[in-house]
Amino acid sequence: MRFKQLGFIAALSLSALAGPGMAQTADPLPSWNDGASKTAIINFVEKVTKEGGSDFVALPERIATFDNDGTLWSEQPLYFQGLFALDQVREQAPNHPEWKTEEPYKSVLAGDTKAVMASGMDGLMKIIGASHANVTSEEFAASVSEWLSTAQHPTKKQPYNELVYQPMLELLDYLRANGFKTFIVSGGGIDFMRVFAEQAYGIPPEQVIGSTLDAKFEMRDGVPTIVKTGDLLLNDDKVGKPVGIYRHIGRQPIFAAGNSDGDLQMLQYTTIARDAEDTTPRFGLIVHHTDAEREWAYDKDSHIGKLDQGLVEAEQRNWTVVDMKADWKKVYPDN
Amino acid sequence: MRFKQLGFIAALSLSALAGPGMAQTADPLPSWNDGASKTAIINFVEKVTKEGGSDFVALPERIATFDNDGTLWSEQPLYFQGLFALDQVREQAPNHPEWKTEEPYKSVLAGDTKAVMASGMDGLMKIIGASHANVTSEEFAASVSEWLSTAQHPTKKQPYNELVYQPMLELLDYLRANGFKTFIVSGGGIDFMRVFAEQAYGIPPEQVIGSTLDAKFEMRDGVPTIVKTGDLLLNDDKVGKPVGIYRHIGRQPIFAAGNSDGDLQMLQYTTIARDAEDTTPRFGLIVHHTDAEREWAYDKDSHIGKLDQGLVEAEQRNWTVVDMKADWKKVYPDN
Repeated sequence: MRFKQLGFIAALSLSALAGPGMAQTADPLPSWNDGASKTAIINFVEKVTKEGGSDFVALPERIATFDNDGTLWSEQPLYFQGLFALDQVREQAPNHPEWKTEEPYKSVLAGDTKAVMASGMDGLMKIIGASHANVTSEEFAASVSEWLSTAQHPTKKQPYNELVYQPMLELLDYLRANGFKTFIVSGGGIDFMRVFAEQAYGIPPEQVIGSTLDAKFEMRDGVPTIVKTGDLLLNDDKVGKPVGIYRHIGRQPIFAAGNSDGDLQMLQYTTIARDAEDTTPRFGLIVHHTDAEREWAYDKDSHIGKLDQGLVEAEQRNWTVVDMKADWKKVYPDN
Repeated sequence: MRFKQLGFIAALSLSALAGPGMAQTADPLPSWNDGASKTAIINFVEKVTKEGGSDFVALPERIATFDNDGTLWSEQPLYFQGLFALDQVREQAPNHPEWKTEEPYKSVLAGDTKAVMASGMDGLMKIIGASHANVTSEEFAASVSEWLSTAQHPTKKQPYNELVYQPMLELLDYLRANGFKTFIVSGGGIDFMRVFAEQAYGIPPEQVIGSTLDAKFEMRDGVPTIVKTGDLLLNDDKVGKPVGIYRHIGRQPIFAAGNSDGDLQMLQYTTIARDAEDTTPRFGLIVHHTDAEREWAYDKDSHIGKLDQGLVEAEQRNWTVVDMKADWKKVYPDN
């Protein structure tokens, strides 16, 4: 009896103490094939968590930032938030008879994606404005939530939030189990991602950074209300990503993952030492879309998720380029 | 021997398991006198952490927001960041001969505080612009750090970061020990506070929200650099506080503490239910400066930290008003 109690207490101690820095026995990245990418990730995590080691990084500095579109979930044939905005225009069309003749709404309603694309950034901002601005934060979150629970991807025929990458979910978990705080830093809208990031990725809203429209506070019938307005406060892409990191996190991450040239400056900001004395280990990761069969294959010639300069710098700066086809045993989670 | 081991393991288990929801045996708020304020705080924390209780709040929702000036540290005779900015103008004056004749710099250099105050918001923005804009994030942090380690409060004759409130430090610790995530939400500058918030309050930079000037990213001689620019992106005061919370946290806190009418909207945003179905317990706290001897005594007639409407609403909305003189055994930490 006494031995059983002792064993019980010892087991409790071990499980309670297991955490940052504790050696893992099971494979922490089961959906990753053995190879250079997986080895590089594990070596990095083991060295920065080894107490007393020369590469040890204290807990508060273990900040990891992840792009979302194309890094944590798919982004073809168009950023999913773009597809949401198009669906919203269609849904709201009955209240806007003028859209029948006004671009880019006219082309959206006609299903002429090519003409919508041709409307460029101006057109896109109008479409986003129609669906994202002048609504309360609650209304916006409810419309995203409703869309995620009903809409299906045009070719994959699955809900969008099932098109997340299983190997990246494992990577997020593995980093967190080793004391990392994981953040999203995405060109996508901050309010859009916050609706599903906690459930999909285990990343709470306060660790989601994205492109940001302004908002204002007002009391409506005695109820505190946030209303989204149309002014762009942060375009969290390219040079905007380090600015978003500075604004929301306030320190240099030691790990960053992206998939396109939009992530270049985040990878530079994360991995380049500020001065010669700084020898902190840092990790840059690029997801290279090489799998036309299970996902999509694209890089420097793609309109969505263009990856060109990123591949050049990856070589110079020793970033890990993940070959989706070769490195991943599976792409999406089993349902 | 075996019993000693057992005891050791049991002690380990207990300390490892102690955490959110665990009953506290020692007084968690030793610098607070027994009374209504202390009782209200402890009752609130105990009910929201009682698993299975009707008032239980899940860990991710245990968000607590604190104003800084006048709530976590003193703010008289002027916000400490204002005193920093004035010191910076004096320090930089040799490089700006034109300031000898140009207001508000002229009055700053003449030590004419009354004239500086009379220059109003325009003057203040000029002074802040001179010290806070067009510098890199590293340069700015270094100048704040240097100032904190050398400057002394004009009457208290102590470094500014020693003028933090011991009872509030205990409250922050107590909330964190019970699974709360603690944030600063202040009208003060986000970059200014991040320099000392981790050491002074145990609040990491990513949980500091404040008034925000824009910034830009650039590579300088191959080094990723953030440069602070002069555009105001968020005035994190009054109606700006709920906006800052929405932007950085993305959900409604359940606990907020302030000390002035600048905190009114944060307290409303935190404590007012959004609809009739929401019965989540919520806590509003106001630090009332009633102690002219140990700190300062001021409220509705003060230019700094004016508290008027806050006292009216505190009664209506059942917020806890902390009487600094009566409720606190000590104000500042022992050195």
